[in-house]
Amino acid sequence: MSERIAVVEEIMGANDRLAAQNRKRLDEAGVLAINIMASPGAGKTSLIERTVRELAKDLEIAVVDGDVATGIDAERAARAGAHAVQINTGGECHLDAVMMQSAFDQIDLNQIDLVIIENVGNLICPAGFKLGAHKNVLIASIPEGDDKPYKYPAMYRGVDALVINKIDLRPYVQFDMDYFKHGVATLNPGLQSFPVSCQTGDGLLAWYTWLRTLIG
Amino acid sequence: MSERIAVVEEIMGANDRLAAQNRKRLDEAGVLAINIMASPGAGKTSLIERTVRELAKDLEIAVVDGDVATGIDAERAARAGAHAVQINTGGECHLDAVMMQSAFDQIDLNQIDLVIIENVGNLICPAGFKLGAHKNVLIASIPEGDDKPYKYPAMYRGVDALVINKIDLRPYVQFDMDYFKHGVATLNPGLQSFPVSCQTGDGLLAWYTWLRTLIG
Repeated sequence: MSERIAVVEEIMGANDRLAAQNRKRLDEAGVLAINIMASPGAGKTSLIERTVRELAKDLEIAVVDGDVATGIDAERAARAGAHAVQINTGGECHLDAVMMQSAFDQIDLNQIDLVIIENVGNLICPAGFKLGAHKNVLIASIPEGDDKPYKYPAMYRGVDALVINKIDLRPYVQFDMDYFKHGVATLNPGLQSFPVSCQTGDGLLAWYTWLRTLIG
Repeated sequence: MSERIAVVEEIMGANDRLAAQNRKRLDEAGVLAINIMASPGAGKTSLIERTVRELAKDLEIAVVDGDVATGIDAERAARAGAHAVQINTGGECHLDAVMMQSAFDQIDLNQIDLVIIENVGNLICPAGFKLGAHKNVLIASIPEGDDKPYKYPAMYRGVDALVINKIDLRPYVQFDMDYFKHGVATLNPGLQSFPVSCQTGDGLLAWYTWLRTLIG
């Protein structure tokens, strides 16, 4: 068993070193990168579409889409007005810093203000792999249920901001917001949160403003 | 790289052999086992609660709950009337045949008619690990979106039945059922499907009947 653990640590070490190189490359080009994570269907692609439509009015945006299969998400991001790169991970349940390096090779970072990375739909694996992004963002969604912070603590612990999507569905599902927020606060005190609906647009202004402030 | 692949194949081979042992043990005890997989929040625990409440009237049921953390789901299953075993996988994104063997060691299988396994909330990793169950069941949910078969093909390809949950939310979300069903039919022609709402109870009778027929 100890041999197996040693190999895993070595992989993680290599990934972290490459993530630091990715970050340096972004900083030299003056690009902000955010890494968006969520379970399947929480609304990553919808949030990115909305964000690109709004911010592409005056910013150049690249979207790197990670999926096990298909190019559906990159096509949606491109239609919204972004430079889009699709990464199909095959069976892998997360993006890693090597994949990100390959994606950056396909983008002229000097022409870009903001890179939005859409990680693979998963609440477990992506938490363990740094990509080099400046901010890690998690999307929770109301119909997923209020117990997710308790059940996926590593993901909630490691992020810099939380988008709570599909608030338009609150009248139709059981979701105890106090219970949810207590779980979040225990794992990640003071975490910046954005309750939104990507369907109606409610709450998105605060999210756009936060991003604009980061870009400066 | 070839060395890394060889190791992965060896792990899978060992898992498959142990899954076959688990199956033999179930068959000798005359127990039906189903493995329920889904993304986080699709309704695994709610479906299991409903199923246990209905079938525990005349059957002995054990629930094996896999989660990264907490015992929330096993507590819910136990309250509904099942013998419940919680497996916390730590960081692992799926159950495997070794964990299942340990769980079965904690159950008197000769007293049980049905074992319901609740896998870790994930649409990727659980598809690759046999447990020894007789039927693999996937829960999709309406608010997850209609593109999931296209984006998680291995999961849809490998299951014996599909529960489509949260049909009560159809009026409030965009979900093209024809597009969804086309994706499913391409990957898994003739797949048995159960449109249900675990909130209202709609459609669950057909699911209970299917399970009772399997138990015989």
